[in-house]
Amino acid sequence: MLYELYYWPGIQGRGEFVRLALEEGDADYIDVARKSGTAKMMRMMEGAGVATVPYAPPFLKAGKLVIGQTANILLYLGGRLMLAPKADAGRLWVHQLQLTIADFVKEIHDTHHPIASSLYYEDQKAEAKRYSGHFLKERVPKYLGYFERVLKKNGGPFLSGKTLTYADLSLFQVISGLRFAFPAAMQVAEKKVSRTISLHDRVMARPRIENYLNSERRIPFNQNGIFRAYGELDA
Amino acid sequence: MLYELYYWPGIQGRGEFVRLALEEGDADYIDVARKSGTAKMMRMMEGAGVATVPYAPPFLKAGKLVIGQTANILLYLGGRLMLAPKADAGRLWVHQLQLTIADFVKEIHDTHHPIASSLYYEDQKAEAKRYSGHFLKERVPKYLGYFERVLKKNGGPFLSGKTLTYADLSLFQVISGLRFAFPAAMQVAEKKVSRTISLHDRVMARPRIENYLNSERRIPFNQNGIFRAYGELDA
Repeated sequence: MLYELYYWPGIQGRGEFVRLALEEGDADYIDVARKSGTAKMMRMMEGAGVATVPYAPPFLKAGKLVIGQTANILLYLGGRLMLAPKADAGRLWVHQLQLTIADFVKEIHDTHHPIASSLYYEDQKAEAKRYSGHFLKERVPKYLGYFERVLKKNGGPFLSGKTLTYADLSLFQVISGLRFAFPAAMQVAEKKVSRTISLHDRVMARPRIENYLNSERRIPFNQNGIFRAYGELDA
Repeated sequence: MLYELYYWPGIQGRGEFVRLALEEGDADYIDVARKSGTAKMMRMMEGAGVATVPYAPPFLKAGKLVIGQTANILLYLGGRLMLAPKADAGRLWVHQLQLTIADFVKEIHDTHHPIASSLYYEDQKAEAKRYSGHFLKERVPKYLGYFERVLKKNGGPFLSGKTLTYADLSLFQVISGLRFAFPAAMQVAEKKVSRTISLHDRVMARPRIENYLNSERRIPFNQNGIFRAYGELDA
């Protein structure tokens, strides 16, 4: 199967959670908009030839299927790329973890856009500062503490136990992004979640992930993505 | 199967999307915290006897399974309560729609809590006013316009075509809630999405839903839930 990933070409964004799964799963895929621009992606979002119109990128074309919503794409890919348990109970658990990561990602995005996505950061800086203060003090410890508890309870080294899943890849990405966006705050926060940091390191050292991160396929973090380095928002 | 739903007892909140599915699906269920308080729910969230610890309510106990995240619970219930297609393609499509509704719900919640969930509304009123202005002008038309396009494209009368799914129940709830929270803005917004409003009406008239809405099992909308009626935020 040759997968087609549709996502904005200039950022990691939510597409990155799918890219990491495709890379670790050794899948054949085309990052369509990076290769040939966004025109086809925009037409598909308007419904051209697509019965299951996505609300927003990323979406994945897999044969005749067009699948939208990041966590839904990963639900689909999980079984096919050996990145999720086969049995129902395990699949639901990994998906539950992924949806919790998705909630965290939305809250991370809002650190620089608490008022409206349509406004520039510069037009909501005061609100972003206030939001980020609460986010770093309350939400980062709560979310990271949750994943740390899961790793402790399930015995690790991965979120669902002995085998890597797409949720581990996503948690790696979140830690990497938080380090880029909030280096000072993360120095403190990481001290209490050693299992989560070990998971991050373990994912990063996997041969396919390491190869990917060192390739041109990995878009660097930048100031247009979900994770943005605004010093004034860091603790 | 006797299902146990765990959710905060005083609000509809995210639990309501699960309740609507359980009711339309004619499932046997206990709304545990409403019946006997939150103590057991809190212990389960701390991990007592639960391998798949939820980050937050709602979660569902179904036999030995404990399933967290609203959309994940609906994914599980969909096939069992005849509220989702059996085939993979249809299941993924309905789940994709549900995840888009979940994104919308989070944005709705943030109309009164744009800065932090830990603060009172009164402590973020200015930001809430600014957020809600953009939300009503930009986000409501975008989301409702999306579901309207889906209904038009797929021929209706339901989001995935001829058969009701849990995503239709959830969209009904969102429209009901928006009417409660933003009556003036919705009067205008509804004019452009007649198919979506018809869907809302069609769901509300289903015998089991009508029975539920008229029962004491339905918690009224109130000022502690996701949808809150603050006149100053309405257009």
